[in-house]
Amino acid sequence: MEKLGLLYQGKAKKLYATEDPEVLWVEYLNQATAGNGAKKEQIVGKAELNNRITTLIFDELKRVGIDSHLVKQISPTDQLVRKMTMFPLEIVQRNVAAGSFSKRLGVDEGTALKEPVLEYYFKSDPLNDPFINDDDAVALGLATREELAQIATLARTINVKLTALFASIDVRLVDFKIEMGKTSDGEILLADEITPDTCRLWDLRSGADAEGDGAVKDGQIERLDKDIFRKDLGSILPAYHEILGRLENLAASH
Amino acid sequence: MEKLGLLYQGKAKKLYATEDPEVLWVEYLNQATAGNGAKKEQIVGKAELNNRITTLIFDELKRVGIDSHLVKQISPTDQLVRKMTMFPLEIVQRNVAAGSFSKRLGVDEGTALKEPVLEYYFKSDPLNDPFINDDDAVALGLATREELAQIATLARTINVKLTALFASIDVRLVDFKIEMGKTSDGEILLADEITPDTCRLWDLRSGADAEGDGAVKDGQIERLDKDIFRKDLGSILPAYHEILGRLENLAASH
Repeated sequence: MEKLGLLYQGKAKKLYATEDPEVLWVEYLNQATAGNGAKKEQIVGKAELNNRITTLIFDELKRVGIDSHLVKQISPTDQLVRKMTMFPLEIVQRNVAAGSFSKRLGVDEGTALKEPVLEYYFKSDPLNDPFINDDDAVALGLATREELAQIATLARTINVKLTALFASIDVRLVDFKIEMGKTSDGEILLADEITPDTCRLWDLRSGADAEGDGAVKDGQIERLDKDIFRKDLGSILPAYHEILGRLENLAASH
Repeated sequence: MEKLGLLYQGKAKKLYATEDPEVLWVEYLNQATAGNGAKKEQIVGKAELNNRITTLIFDELKRVGIDSHLVKQISPTDQLVRKMTMFPLEIVQRNVAAGSFSKRLGVDEGTALKEPVLEYYFKSDPLNDPFINDDDAVALGLATREELAQIATLARTINVKLTALFASIDVRLVDFKIEMGKTSDGEILLADEITPDTCRLWDLRSGADAEGDGAVKDGQIERLDKDIFRKDLGSILPAYHEILGRLENLAASH
């Protein structure tokens, strides 16, 4: 498979065409950003970590019945994926109040939600990815009502599976962002990535950071995700390495 | 009926207890506000206009099967209403892009929406009434999922009836905000007010403003609502008088 024309440059990945019209080439980048690109930094090693973490998570999800766009990892920083027509939606699932949810609604970070909250954000850099509801999405032509129903069902199922997956490696899945697309034959599939860039992951191995496991202590929370970067709490690399290590142990255990 | 203890002071109304535990006394105020109270002004005559307009609209809605909290108007500025447990929700219906919808989503004001958009805002002054979705409302305990389903159905029906009502007096109902509550026996009812304070109303009698009908021309739009105040386009009184006059003609025609 060959890397052909650059189709899209995102904040953390580049997307290329290949000679197969149904397959795209994803190159992970070392760039970290926060605040919709307001903060930006090169972090050597991040590309390899996220490529490997996404691959392991998508493989684990496949074992429990959730298919994704992933074809296979082909190098430390590269993947092949199925070509999809992407929905311009950030699909967010929240199990615990944190981040913009806490700020917007005045709920203390760490408050467990009575039931998971599903939110959509319209992927638009000029509009700063505004929060939208189902009616907005339909009015803007981002998805049909039938597609939204499928997206919601799939997102809620992924949350259940992913929460269990992270719990099995002693990590609390606080919230996460995913994206979905439609294959050429109309199937809605999980796409993009699932990494510590796109999840809030809190360590459940209490005090383990003292033993050098990479989690960064922030009040009562031991962070293993991009909030370390967003909040200037130190390097993300040890935390991302820790997530990768635990996922590799999990994969080896099957 | 006697006006007893002051229960609540809003931006445009005061709410009092009465000797009947099931009935409250609403006093309309002359105050106009915009930007969640950032802009504030006393407009003599506004209280009487809005009290009369709400009464006429609630009476018209009742004729077409939509009940409300209104018991009756008892003076130029006062109403009696049924006591309700209010949902802390601003329930917004949009037929045409305008206001915060246009700004948030980058859709030109005046763009007709393919289907009406229903949005909820959490009534919270300290949080500045944030936009929320159904899951947020449930997570925050603002309403149950079953109540939201009833609220949505009722809001969409009210939009259909209210759009027809305004069309019959040559006014385009662009969007509006309503509130709902629950009676002591569990019925969900329309409450609060429906006035040019809470609706965007565009005149369909083209050029009629030249004949002194109160609409304020703003580009292609002839405004008959509180946007005249929000946008500093002049006095709202002629426009509110015009809406009242047309509603009185409608009522007289039955």
